[in-house]
Amino acid sequence: MPEEKTDRLTPARLEAFSDGVIAVIITIMVLELHVPGKEIATLAALRLDLPLVLVYLLSFIQTGIYWVNHHYLIDDLDQVTHGILWSNLALLFALSLIPVATNWVGVRGISPSSIALYAALCAFPALPWMVLSTLIQRRSKTPPASGIVKQAASVCLYLGSIVVAFLSPWIAIAMIALVAVVWLLPPRKIVELSRNSSHPPL
Amino acid sequence: MPEEKTDRLTPARLEAFSDGVIAVIITIMVLELHVPGKEIATLAALRLDLPLVLVYLLSFIQTGIYWVNHHYLIDDLDQVTHGILWSNLALLFALSLIPVATNWVGVRGISPSSIALYAALCAFPALPWMVLSTLIQRRSKTPPASGIVKQAASVCLYLGSIVVAFLSPWIAIAMIALVAVVWLLPPRKIVELSRNSSHPPL
Amino acid sequence: MPEEKTDRLTPARLEAFSDGVIAVIITIMVLELHVPGKEIATLAALRLDLPLVLVYLLSFIQTGIYWVNHHYLIDDLDQVTHGILWSNLALLFALSLIPVATNWVGVRGISPSSIALYAALCAFPALPWMVLSTLIQRRSKTPPASGIVKQAASVCLYLGSIVVAFLSPWIAIAMIALVAVVWLLPPRKIVELSRNSSHPPL
Amino acid sequence: MPEEKTDRLTPARLEAFSDGVIAVIITIMVLELHVPGKEIATLAALRLDLPLVLVYLLSFIQTGIYWVNHHYLIDDLDQVTHGILWSNLALLFALSLIPVATNWVGVRGISPSSIALYAALCAFPALPWMVLSTLIQRRSKTPPASGIVKQAASVCLYLGSIVVAFLSPWIAIAMIALVAVVWLLPPRKIVELSRNSSHPPL
Repeated sequence: MPEEKTDRLTPARLEAFSDGVIAVIITIMVLELHVPGKEIATLAALRLDLPLVLVYLLSFIQTGIYWVNHHYLIDDLDQVTHGILWSNLALLFALSLIPVATNWVGVRGISPSSIALYAALCAFPALPWMVLSTLIQRRSKTPPASGIVKQAASVCLYLGSIVVAFLSPWIAIAMIALVAVVWLLPPRKIVELSRNSSHPPL
Repeated sequence: MPEEKTDRLTPARLEAFSDGVIAVIITIMVLELHVPGKEIATLAALRLDLPLVLVYLLSFIQTGIYWVNHHYLIDDLDQVTHGILWSNLALLFALSLIPVATNWVGVRGISPSSIALYAALCAFPALPWMVLSTLIQRRSKTPPASGIVKQAASVCLYLGSIVVAFLSPWIAIAMIALVAVVWLLPPRKIVELSRNSSHPPL
Repeated sequence: MPEEKTDRLTPARLEAFSDGVIAVIITIMVLELHVPGKEIATLAALRLDLPLVLVYLLSFIQTGIYWVNHHYLIDDLDQVTHGILWSNLALLFALSLIPVATNWVGVRGISPSSIALYAALCAFPALPWMVLSTLIQRRSKTPPASGIVKQAASVCLYLGSIVVAFLSPWIAIAMIALVAVVWLLPPRKIVELSRNSSHPPL
Repeated sequence: MPEEKTDRLTPARLEAFSDGVIAVIITIMVLELHVPGKEIATLAALRLDLPLVLVYLLSFIQTGIYWVNHHYLIDDLDQVTHGILWSNLALLFALSLIPVATNWVGVRGISPSSIALYAALCAFPALPWMVLSTLIQRRSKTPPASGIVKQAASVCLYLGSIVVAFLSPWIAIAMIALVAVVWLLPPRKIVELSRNSSHPPL
């Protein structure tokens, strides 16, 4: 019987594996946080480490954003095709470079070139994300995702911050932080859900 | 049909992702355990490492406490709102700093400033925890959690140990260990369950 | 209604979290494998690393044994009590020291004291294991586990190898390897299952 | 009742644990990516790191291929025997050496001996894979897997690249990349599924 021949590589399993990879990515970044040696006083060490903690927090939020949006994307999926499978793995590969970018900033400090590289590696997952979301939306009958404007704005901010980093790394960091703020706002789907709900929306 | 439009970001998935992150956090702490070089005799090396092993054990128990209580918290949840989602991620971020704090003590030794920082980073997850538990309890009709007294006591002990660390790091460690003991006692829910049960309660 | 008050911290969730922790433990051991610098020729480097690879393989098998037996243990469980919960976490803590023990041998080489420590940390998880299996079997009506003889033999071999390590580290390693061989033999439950099965038992 | 005696170590759980291990393997490779110190300019550092990034990408794809094929393999499985259990763990052990091989190339550079070792460690998982797939196919009534030709070709390419590495490491890398390309092509099962589907096959 054809119904019996269920393929185990279901959207649920793809999501579970992606969750596992993202859980590792979001957590190993912490290992990159440099602990200064005994020769530096604690307060001085903390002041030196503060920018790295901020960059780490930024990386954490951005990985979190990808995780949240990944759920809404997979939500519309009925079957995992070969293209969806591999563009999803490409997305995970791109995301796994974010700890490397964070570590790069940690080791080499906040400089024009290190922040430009950080911005470039933050922009990189957007590429497989677009392929993946296109492939998934082609299969579903739902209209284009509501987040399409946000996605375009994010990519513009990322690409812009690569250039701006050479003028001022801190303005480039602010632009990447702006992407985080944009996505931290609730997506339309959640807004609609909470509008129909009698519970306070947060 | 509205029933069909199930959102995949269910409490179960939020819990599974949180479990994944906490599993990584609780395990990578072990990597921080410093293995001394060949020039030190094994027994001398073990004696030097013992305080760090104790701090590591303390970090393990505290992460375990957060994991256990997180389950009871999510248990009351019917739907994941935007605020719950992001306060949960903030909690995971705060928890991921515990290995950093443990590593800090490992690299810099048990000193007033290192233990004060350790106590501060142990207290930090309490902040997103309170936001998260408030948001979840507002949705559920159940009365405030039975652990509310314990939570307040824990935060007082944590904050107190930050100050005490500058007088005596070991008393501060004892205060943090006391938090562990308080939470290792069974919560009321488990007590009630085992009261109705004919099995020995351990 | 009491049926509705399902506790999310079910045996299935305890098992999933334990699986996550063990998956991380079994994999991070690989990171400890020391890659020699360019100044040593590849073949010479491989010959130097071979004992460590063997110890790593031994650690992998032992963690695998604990994982497999943990499943059979949890299989008999109907409800997670406070004691089961924390003895399970104690078991995970003890298991997370196996990568440390492996790393210790990797950094300090195969010597009487390093192998004695390795044997001691291999024996350590047996303690929470016994507590956990006692608590679980007290709840279930099934007779004592068939593996009880194997468990006693393993602990004897572990404890014996701590002493033997000071006479000959390689004989101690052979004794720990013997524990692996003992457990790699199929447990009675599987034997019974395959006896009723028409498929070849391998 | 025999139906009640369900064994928790089901194919689903074996798959979930394997997924967890592979998720950690595929992600920790990123930690091996060497971040050069401040004394090297960013562009020069990037040019030096590029070959390692390519090798890392290759390792990522190969681990991804094993993950995908593992799902199709487990899909045919009805019960986990002792042999399947341990050949699956042997496969995970072999896979966990891929980050070590990648790190070896990262530390020692692209040389005949480092690439020969890399190729050998890429070929190694093929051994437990064949044992595992033989054991699983013996249980299922389905005809031999369609990927059997690909598997033989891959092993030939791997083993060949060990030898070729001593003549030209880059040709050996190209041969390993060819294995990736071969497996990136959709397997027959997916092709058949998409042939029956009215959706575009990507």
